[in-house]
Amino acid sequence: MAETKKDCNVALFGAGFMGRAHSNAYLNVAKFFDLPVRPVMHTVCDILGADAFAANWGWQHASTDWRATAAADEVDLVDITTPNHQHAPVAVAALEAGKHVACEKPLAGTLDDARAMKQAADAHPDQRTHVWFSYRGCPALALARKMVRDGKIGRIFHVRAQYLQDWAGPDVPLLWRFKGTESGSGAHGDLNAHIVDACCFVTGEQITEVCGAIMETYIKRRVIPESEAGNIKGATVGDKIEYGDVTVDDAVSFLARLSGGGSASFEATRLAAGRKNANRIEINGEKGSLRWDFEDMNWLWYYNVEDDAERAGWQKIMCTDATAHPYVAAWWPDAHILGYEHGFVNLASTLLKNIGGAADAVEVPAPTFQDAYETQRVLEAAVLSAQNRSWIDLSDVK
Amino acid sequence: MAETKKDCNVALFGAGFMGRAHSNAYLNVAKFFDLPVRPVMHTVCDILGADAFAANWGWQHASTDWRATAAADEVDLVDITTPNHQHAPVAVAALEAGKHVACEKPLAGTLDDARAMKQAADAHPDQRTHVWFSYRGCPALALARKMVRDGKIGRIFHVRAQYLQDWAGPDVPLLWRFKGTESGSGAHGDLNAHIVDACCFVTGEQITEVCGAIMETYIKRRVIPESEAGNIKGATVGDKIEYGDVTVDDAVSFLARLSGGGSASFEATRLAAGRKNANRIEINGEKGSLRWDFEDMNWLWYYNVEDDAERAGWQKIMCTDATAHPYVAAWWPDAHILGYEHGFVNLASTLLKNIGGAADAVEVPAPTFQDAYETQRVLEAAVLSAQNRSWIDLSDVK
Amino acid sequence: MAETKKDCNVALFGAGFMGRAHSNAYLNVAKFFDLPVRPVMHTVCDILGADAFAANWGWQHASTDWRATAAADEVDLVDITTPNHQHAPVAVAALEAGKHVACEKPLAGTLDDARAMKQAADAHPDQRTHVWFSYRGCPALALARKMVRDGKIGRIFHVRAQYLQDWAGPDVPLLWRFKGTESGSGAHGDLNAHIVDACCFVTGEQITEVCGAIMETYIKRRVIPESEAGNIKGATVGDKIEYGDVTVDDAVSFLARLSGGGSASFEATRLAAGRKNANRIEINGEKGSLRWDFEDMNWLWYYNVEDDAERAGWQKIMCTDATAHPYVAAWWPDAHILGYEHGFVNLASTLLKNIGGAADAVEVPAPTFQDAYETQRVLEAAVLSAQNRSWIDLSDVK
Amino acid sequence: MAETKKDCNVALFGAGFMGRAHSNAYLNVAKFFDLPVRPVMHTVCDILGADAFAANWGWQHASTDWRATAAADEVDLVDITTPNHQHAPVAVAALEAGKHVACEKPLAGTLDDARAMKQAADAHPDQRTHVWFSYRGCPALALARKMVRDGKIGRIFHVRAQYLQDWAGPDVPLLWRFKGTESGSGAHGDLNAHIVDACCFVTGEQITEVCGAIMETYIKRRVIPESEAGNIKGATVGDKIEYGDVTVDDAVSFLARLSGGGSASFEATRLAAGRKNANRIEINGEKGSLRWDFEDMNWLWYYNVEDDAERAGWQKIMCTDATAHPYVAAWWPDAHILGYEHGFVNLASTLLKNIGGAADAVEVPAPTFQDAYETQRVLEAAVLSAQNRSWIDLSDVK
Repeated sequence: MAETKKDCNVALFGAGFMGRAHSNAYLNVAKFFDLPVRPVMHTVCDILGADAFAANWGWQHASTDWRATAAADEVDLVDITTPNHQHAPVAVAALEAGKHVACEKPLAGTLDDARAMKQAADAHPDQRTHVWFSYRGCPALALARKMVRDGKIGRIFHVRAQYLQDWAGPDVPLLWRFKGTESGSGAHGDLNAHIVDACCFVTGEQITEVCGAIMETYIKRRVIPESEAGNIKGATVGDKIEYGDVTVDDAVSFLARLSGGGSASFEATRLAAGRKNANRIEINGEKGSLRWDFEDMNWLWYYNVEDDAERAGWQKIMCTDATAHPYVAAWWPDAHILGYEHGFVNLASTLLKNIGGAADAVEVPAPTFQDAYETQRVLEAAVLSAQNRSWIDLSDVK
Repeated sequence: MAETKKDCNVALFGAGFMGRAHSNAYLNVAKFFDLPVRPVMHTVCDILGADAFAANWGWQHASTDWRATAAADEVDLVDITTPNHQHAPVAVAALEAGKHVACEKPLAGTLDDARAMKQAADAHPDQRTHVWFSYRGCPALALARKMVRDGKIGRIFHVRAQYLQDWAGPDVPLLWRFKGTESGSGAHGDLNAHIVDACCFVTGEQITEVCGAIMETYIKRRVIPESEAGNIKGATVGDKIEYGDVTVDDAVSFLARLSGGGSASFEATRLAAGRKNANRIEINGEKGSLRWDFEDMNWLWYYNVEDDAERAGWQKIMCTDATAHPYVAAWWPDAHILGYEHGFVNLASTLLKNIGGAADAVEVPAPTFQDAYETQRVLEAAVLSAQNRSWIDLSDVK
Repeated sequence: MAETKKDCNVALFGAGFMGRAHSNAYLNVAKFFDLPVRPVMHTVCDILGADAFAANWGWQHASTDWRATAAADEVDLVDITTPNHQHAPVAVAALEAGKHVACEKPLAGTLDDARAMKQAADAHPDQRTHVWFSYRGCPALALARKMVRDGKIGRIFHVRAQYLQDWAGPDVPLLWRFKGTESGSGAHGDLNAHIVDACCFVTGEQITEVCGAIMETYIKRRVIPESEAGNIKGATVGDKIEYGDVTVDDAVSFLARLSGGGSASFEATRLAAGRKNANRIEINGEKGSLRWDFEDMNWLWYYNVEDDAERAGWQKIMCTDATAHPYVAAWWPDAHILGYEHGFVNLASTLLKNIGGAADAVEVPAPTFQDAYETQRVLEAAVLSAQNRSWIDLSDVK
Repeated sequence: MAETKKDCNVALFGAGFMGRAHSNAYLNVAKFFDLPVRPVMHTVCDILGADAFAANWGWQHASTDWRATAAADEVDLVDITTPNHQHAPVAVAALEAGKHVACEKPLAGTLDDARAMKQAADAHPDQRTHVWFSYRGCPALALARKMVRDGKIGRIFHVRAQYLQDWAGPDVPLLWRFKGTESGSGAHGDLNAHIVDACCFVTGEQITEVCGAIMETYIKRRVIPESEAGNIKGATVGDKIEYGDVTVDDAVSFLARLSGGGSASFEATRLAAGRKNANRIEINGEKGSLRWDFEDMNWLWYYNVEDDAERAGWQKIMCTDATAHPYVAAWWPDAHILGYEHGFVNLASTLLKNIGGAADAVEVPAPTFQDAYETQRVLEAAVLSAQNRSWIDLSDVK
């Protein structure tokens, strides 16, 4: 364990894109937030080696041995950013070794893995678990949640959630993200996971039923990147180019019922040309509406049914007011907008406050393994609905 | 029949909101468009009487006798804007009397009525039928169709269509629109009808399967307007206010498959606070995307996958270029934007060109009874999907 | 004079673009508005002949004799849409003949002409004068005026007005609009006239000083349209193409002081690529702000300083509420948006109410010759400021 | 000097808002960019003491002695974020001590100070000078510059630049920013400095003439913050509240000529209710237009005159493509948007490349003292224009 109580030694698993985003969060979070513990960038672990990564970001150690790192005595917090099928083994081992555990989303590639992780968290209630649904760290989305809780929207009739991207056109090769064995799913786990979490986060409601779903792989075969040609099931050899089967979805959309009686729709796709990172949600209630799009992440739109007819209209709120908007006081003067990685820094502040026992200082809650398991159940229900061509009651998905 | 070949005597049925919109179209269309026949505002017929209406708009005659009007010798074109349950009797009678027949959407309140109308149209192939899906008359939506046909979008992956309104909050009384016996359905027939037509119009594809649907009445009872209290099934008597049961949906959303292999979602609601007339459609294809919202009806957004990465982005096209955009040459110089009723005037030009035998001058096709019957089948399939909690193949809906 | 008191016989001068816009207004205005007089489309007069125009629009007579028409006994209202240098002679003659006179903007091509028209109006105070600053007829701009009058904005600090178009690139030939003898000025009279009127209309203030101006002709020579080659001063003859001198401005921008102490900026140009019809105004006051752009003419943006910090933001008001927004009750149900020509129809309703003595029914005032003369003085002051390279006090411009 | 050649020891002056922004830049820049020197956070100097600031951000030393720090042997780079009137003495001393010098904008509070700094830079040509016009570090603005240089816009007709804020309403007390002795100017130096730099940066042109200006203090007296009551010229004593005179402008707007023949307008204000940080620029050229607003900093709008009429329209470019947009490759995968402080980090990368002699790796140039002096001359010309009520030729401002 760290030598002083105030230090929290972090071990990061995975030195890819998410590894960078988390490193940036640990580097910066204590500069902006007042925290009960000090994050120490102790060890980064990656099976391909992480020496250069450690040197660049200031991790004190680099390792290729995940079992040793997850159990190392000096480590307080294990943070997992590896491919989805590796989440469960690392998380369970770390929990059993007495660590706090944070994990990238989705919680796991399969519901079985997710359940195992949730059960491990249940078995170690004194250790914190944390899932990086990073958009909870966007002030605008957190403000939406606050306004719903404050009764600004009233009874919720509709949630309309989409996560649209466009990077997976037919020319994109067969990356690991297109292989079910590594990623578990495609757009569904990658993108729908975010918006299911956002829906429950903002509304405070649960999804009780999936009322229809379409799951589709539009680009069924892709070129195998050179290094892997010939090693993949389904690959064929042409004159110059080899193709392999895509084994995940490109797009999944589904309809759902909310516990408060409203309806919801969810859509994730990687084939919406022009939609770069359109993580969007709109909530329509009896007293008003809210909507948000990550592509314009600093703005929240609000409609108040009770405004005078003369002025009634969607209000475009720049969520940068230190006195009124979540997280903002930690950053710059009003009206200096934030970017993508601030979501991680903000969420890291919550994680470290929770670990430091300052739960009452937590402005915006971060999801636990238990919460993320609920999201995983919804994703599973959507898959079943698409496969069975019928509605699925969530109580039938365990 | 009209005294000169060039006149087309119109009989309008219904002197409400749509009666006004159609009157405006007949008054103005020949001022802007070069037509093979001249529309003559001959008779307006309404069971409540239409003398003042006729005087205001310049209809030569007013009648309360629908049977006589529909069969009158001098009438060339019967145009129906009455409540939905009256569409079929008037339309069938008029077709049998040898008239061309235009009808407001949805084609009918029930699939049985719609089928009867379609069969009557089949039986009189030399008479034109026409359904007022007026948004086809918006230049931007017509341009979207043209761009799809010209291959700008390529293979279609997704259609995302919504028609969101917000006028039906809990304080709105039990108008005829909330009574199934008069309207047939609620948001579904009123709004989804438009966007199903728009989807097929723009993409040139058909809907082959409904893959889940939610149909809901959120506000189940409404105050009975004073004149009707006590006359409505389900009404109860309180001290001062009487309530009646709402017998149509407030909102219907459904998922669907397109004949080209893509997926589509449709949502109609009257409870989306802040969405006033948000008739919206987005099409994502392999080569690009298009999107449109009636609230900004003069703009079409276009994304071209083949643009250089430096400049690639959604392009906001003001659809007011006389040399390049449908319908525009008839109106004002470039960049003088159009409004709601221009859709009717534009569609009226098509109707009158068709009646005058100038089909090759028709820039944008208007839907026939046969087309609208297909739309009605899709609406029926969505209802069945919501009721059965399962997918519905369109071939099972006759 | 018209046979019944209720008729108002209109004589229209000029059968071009504006002639069409006014014809449309007279055709439709009584269908939507309840008016004290009935507009009768009596005579259209154009030196090139207007028989076809009259037939198309339903004018009862066509004439080429402007003097006779302006003085004809049966005419009640003379409406002028001819080129700017013809405004004064027609208007003065008509006023002297006892007619009400409406005139397209700018009031005249020169300040001398404008003064003569204003003096003629002064001399005939019982006849109405009216200038077609048609954007006053847009509900959103009229709402902006109402909100300022109701104190929603408070003390005005800034007005930022622009009218940006892009149709006058180097390839556009030497049309009449580029010739000073016919048009009087370029973008200045055509576009700045509108936004100076809008500024005074919305704020209720006057312009007291011009504090700097730039007037420029960027494209100094243009191709002479074939029919006119060789007839224009400055033309030169090449192998195939002849050029002539542009004798008006392409763009004029100026700064000004408002009578309430605030500052204002105005900019008109025909060379703002991508700005099609961007007639825009923003008002910043102590209590709030308003902004509007004709390219999105149905929307008004409003910012209220007194809103809670949590929700404060620009509010996007769709100006289509019959109970709360000017002119709207005359048209369609809420949320059915209007277009360009509705401005003329709305303003025509004011003109006819004024003529019919129903001034107290006028919701939004239309400008008189006196008002438009004030606007013309501001335009003249801007020209003087650009020429003199110094500030110009409006009291020095008579 | 730093112990290894690769280290660059930084001394930061000023521990306020800008001190934080620069600290963040030095902390993060080497994590994302490949740099020829390593920035070392050596000393922070503030007259009020900076121990806590140093501890939070990781500065190795804290000092209150500016003279000693500016001349300290170990320091390689002096970076100045103090109030404007302190820029010159620190910068000149540091240059004379052989340091590279970076300075916040505006270069100085007065033109005399700016000239002294420019001359000191001239006298030490081997030392780098750098001014933090941080918006050059926004990818979208840097892309605009690139597109202009690549000829996408052609001959420039108009630049329309505004920097609008709203934080200075009548209730805001008499902060240092409202006192001329400390800040030199109000909105003019604070905001117009940015947009004059942006104009020259993007267009590559200079401003040759100021053609009119308005400079105004709308709120002439403000409440004195408690600590300072009685110490300020112009203060009066009431029962409870004391007021002092505001001695800077609230707003300055001016017109200008560009060296390429086009016209430009600039406006800075702190009284534009609802405009939070609206640093905006639009460039209209013969071949196209570009526009940008910092409130939506990740987007650049582009209009291409040569697009087909069918698709021509403003294109909304998300400037997050690593292959095509400046700075982006250093950060996250495509479509992960940046925030305010990234501008500083990006500009810091340029500063450190310049110091390390890797000028050919500089993608986007940062301004030198010489460049910023030119901007200061333009600001001075605007002041003179407002005072003299006439045009000012830049050649008359030295």
